[in-house]
Amino acid sequence: MNITKDERDAVYKTIFSRRDVRGEFKPDPVPDDVIKRILTAAHHAPSVGFMQPWNFIVVKKAETKKEIKHAFAKAHAEATMMFDEEKRKQYKSLKLEGIMEAPIGICVTCDRTRNGPTVIGRTAIQEMDLYSSVCAVQNLWIAARAENLGVGWVSIIHNEVLRDILKIPEHIVPIAYLCIGYVSFFHDKPELEKAGWLSRIDIDSLIYDEYWLSK
Amino acid sequence: MNITKDERDAVYKTIFSRRDVRGEFKPDPVPDDVIKRILTAAHHAPSVGFMQPWNFIVVKKAETKKEIKHAFAKAHAEATMMFDEEKRKQYKSLKLEGIMEAPIGICVTCDRTRNGPTVIGRTAIQEMDLYSSVCAVQNLWIAARAENLGVGWVSIIHNEVLRDILKIPEHIVPIAYLCIGYVSFFHDKPELEKAGWLSRIDIDSLIYDEYWLSK
Repeated sequence: MNITKDERDAVYKTIFSRRDVRGEFKPDPVPDDVIKRILTAAHHAPSVGFMQPWNFIVVKKAETKKEIKHAFAKAHAEATMMFDEEKRKQYKSLKLEGIMEAPIGICVTCDRTRNGPTVIGRTAIQEMDLYSSVCAVQNLWIAARAENLGVGWVSIIHNEVLRDILKIPEHIVPIAYLCIGYVSFFHDKPELEKAGWLSRIDIDSLIYDEYWLSK
Repeated sequence: MNITKDERDAVYKTIFSRRDVRGEFKPDPVPDDVIKRILTAAHHAPSVGFMQPWNFIVVKKAETKKEIKHAFAKAHAEATMMFDEEKRKQYKSLKLEGIMEAPIGICVTCDRTRNGPTVIGRTAIQEMDLYSSVCAVQNLWIAARAENLGVGWVSIIHNEVLRDILKIPEHIVPIAYLCIGYVSFFHDKPELEKAGWLSRIDIDSLIYDEYWLSK
């Protein structure tokens, strides 16, 4: 199946305009068929040995979100103390999540036991199943952007606490808690870049020929 | 920036027709500007705290590929012994890589020390930087499919050996070695599904409402 030049450009437009959304969620409901489409995209991510180790917990209730917001607040307070004084003030001023504002939360997980102990392609690198679930997150994120939905990844939270709130068993690894919803606008650049926290690295400095550091 | 319905459909077409390619690589060279475009897509993946922990080593020489193929063969022989007898025969018959055939190899890495010890969003979950580099892999993969390029992820290889071959320092984690090139065709389904190794899981069984296992 051939992808045309116009289709290719649509893919690049989507990839380059994707953002990590925190502050721009609108309360408008996300139709169930749209949620199903982005989850179907996630389910078509590559997975090691066709393991498909993911599950998707769709969170909609305010009381569940409140517990997750509380868990974030705790982990965020701990994190604040890890920055030196100069950076701490700026860190505290950044909006880093939209847990309550986003109408939908989706937790993407990894079942490391799925399809038995020996998985094709996970024999030398044990983390391959976790990486497969991350690929599902990124497929979901790109599909969501193509639906004009914003996505924000909440990583300032302890997995044990998230497991507790969402009743996830011990053998399942939470990979991502994603806030999802329509947005008032998408920022033209990543917010941490706009805020002057870090700059976009020159891509040429990241590419090596044949060996590490070789140009 | 709005994504139109046609653009959205182009994204889904790309996501659903993406494959893990092993046997269909053509020797046709991949132009440098195409490589640069897919690496630019990778560089626009989400990264924790805008850390951008990735590098890209572009492998083109046959002698480098030969070493990687040799490392694969060793890890593959080890893996063969991990399957029970029934599955072992089928496992041995599967073509699992196109290292020599693909004109380009790209190793995507993660520099866990980039931008200092404290990274926004990596304070509670230390793996977030590794996950960022996986998002870069998936962005690259989707962009490559949009360019009608096949990609195959070689995970049957030991990271220490890959590090050695590509002269990657100790503190850098190899995330993926990808074989990339134009292809004679894309399979309509994942090859492991076609071969009857595993089936596509019914997506409805993977989605829970509000809590684990709740429907």
